[in-house]
Amino acid sequence: MESGRLGHPVPREFYKERDVVMEERRMRVDNEPQSLMAEQMHAALHLSHPYGRPVIGWAEELRRIDRVSAQDFYDHHYAPNNAILVVAGDVTPDEVRKMAQDAYGKLPARTLAPRTESAEPPRMAETRMSITRDDAKVPIFSRLYRVPSYSQGTPGQAESLEVYGQLLGGDQTSVLYRVLVEQKKLATDVGASYDGYVRDTAEFSVYAVPRPGVTLEQIEKAVDQVLQVNTLALPRDNDLARAKTGLIASVTYRRDSQFSLASAYGQALTIGLTVDDVNEWPARIRAVNAEGVRKAAQSLNRRQAVTAYLIPGGGKQ
Amino acid sequence: MESGRLGHPVPREFYKERDVVMEERRMRVDNEPQSLMAEQMHAALHLSHPYGRPVIGWAEELRRIDRVSAQDFYDHHYAPNNAILVVAGDVTPDEVRKMAQDAYGKLPARTLAPRTESAEPPRMAETRMSITRDDAKVPIFSRLYRVPSYSQGTPGQAESLEVYGQLLGGDQTSVLYRVLVEQKKLATDVGASYDGYVRDTAEFSVYAVPRPGVTLEQIEKAVDQVLQVNTLALPRDNDLARAKTGLIASVTYRRDSQFSLASAYGQALTIGLTVDDVNEWPARIRAVNAEGVRKAAQSLNRRQAVTAYLIPGGGKQ
Repeated sequence: MESGRLGHPVPREFYKERDVVMEERRMRVDNEPQSLMAEQMHAALHLSHPYGRPVIGWAEELRRIDRVSAQDFYDHHYAPNNAILVVAGDVTPDEVRKMAQDAYGKLPARTLAPRTESAEPPRMAETRMSITRDDAKVPIFSRLYRVPSYSQGTPGQAESLEVYGQLLGGDQTSVLYRVLVEQKKLATDVGASYDGYVRDTAEFSVYAVPRPGVTLEQIEKAVDQVLQVNTLALPRDNDLARAKTGLIASVTYRRDSQFSLASAYGQALTIGLTVDDVNEWPARIRAVNAEGVRKAAQSLNRRQAVTAYLIPGGGKQ
Repeated sequence: MESGRLGHPVPREFYKERDVVMEERRMRVDNEPQSLMAEQMHAALHLSHPYGRPVIGWAEELRRIDRVSAQDFYDHHYAPNNAILVVAGDVTPDEVRKMAQDAYGKLPARTLAPRTESAEPPRMAETRMSITRDDAKVPIFSRLYRVPSYSQGTPGQAESLEVYGQLLGGDQTSVLYRVLVEQKKLATDVGASYDGYVRDTAEFSVYAVPRPGVTLEQIEKAVDQVLQVNTLALPRDNDLARAKTGLIASVTYRRDSQFSLASAYGQALTIGLTVDDVNEWPARIRAVNAEGVRKAAQSLNRRQAVTAYLIPGGGKQ
């Protein structure tokens, strides 16, 4: 079934399918002020790189895409020589290899579109924006930093960013949560995370929702104080241990699902990593030390960042 | 000679020529903080449209471009069916047509790359940035607005924006100059202009250089007051008359040069306008009235704008 999907042009029902995608976009993005904000932030973060474009496409581009350009994209991307097949389940490698050969061996290789070179120009300043929306329910402070990915970083760099994200804002035991929500009572929600499984530059994100009466400027200042402390002081031992355990546990639980397990391997192979990289990830996370986390904190550079405020309320949409 | 340039691939000395372009970029852009700021602003103004990319290319992209991709670009863009030939001088149409036929008629038409659709997603907020550079000599406040172009606007809209740019900051008799430089003594230099000869969205720009001791925040506020007044009050009759005369005169003087005259026609035809459009432009500028200028002022929307501060001084580059 899957090899049939790959081998036979999708666009038979092109315009009907396009309407489905446009409806999906309306539901998931256009009616979600946070998603709209995230799109604008990504577009601002990447000056030239295609990561600045939403995967589902801009609404205006979806409206204009036609069967011919979809077919053209298909012809230069959907081919066995541009695919990774992952099979999870009660199978043996030999069986899988034989079935894959039968199902996919008959599909011809294609001339692929050349991969866009990741020649991202340097950013010269933080970019800032305040988005006012009637449909926003709460104000949100959000910041995205450009940071190295698992494909780009020096050994241990991506892992340190991963651990720092968890330690900073991974859950309700995190540093940002303790300081902003529990101690200072400035925020009702906070979070931080590292999204490093990409081929080129990755992203590190931080957000906070201020309590009623607290301004976005106040919450940003409080977040920046925490970030600043982490560039100076090493993390506490128990914070570091808890972050690493939490990360490894969440990945281990997730991989109880065969689909997630298969996805993890597929995602890693797609960005140029190996099966060993995936298998050894828990050990590499365990090896992250306090100095690595401080270096990760120091690597967050405001010039490489976009800061956005989402503000509920009036104003023309 | 020109038909030879069109017909025969440029890239024979590709890498040597590329070095020349890279050197040109270093001189004109990388060593000019104002040019670097303008690049960052254009990249921020256009979320998806290729107008967000500098014409000369990002340094990183120039470094990576190779002979094959240059040839590919050439093959899909440089062709008689994608060219406009303008000949200025002591010639007759019949002679020119015959010579053009002889010189260009033998070049084959090519399959052109499809024109990028101008499906620019909506901006949701003003974008702001502060760029600190050791090599900046003076602080500068700069703002770019997305506005309709000559190809897009309703009748008279581009002309009204053109007149408003001149009236606002075209020269030392302009409103911004009188208020900020002469009366309030806040600025040493100001300017505004409309850049409307493009196919898709055009730009309207405003800038000011504060006097020593005046902050960029103060100068921005003062500029915004002037912009605000212009959305409410109609322009003074003599300001309107002077702006129109100034615009028409500068274009008339410029067209004393045969090269400029030819360029004006070429530029207009390239974006889909006609020879008549060029010839009738002075009459259309004369027809702009006070209400049109106020509407132009009202059409400058902060959500469609990028605001940047250039700050001389320390800070890592």
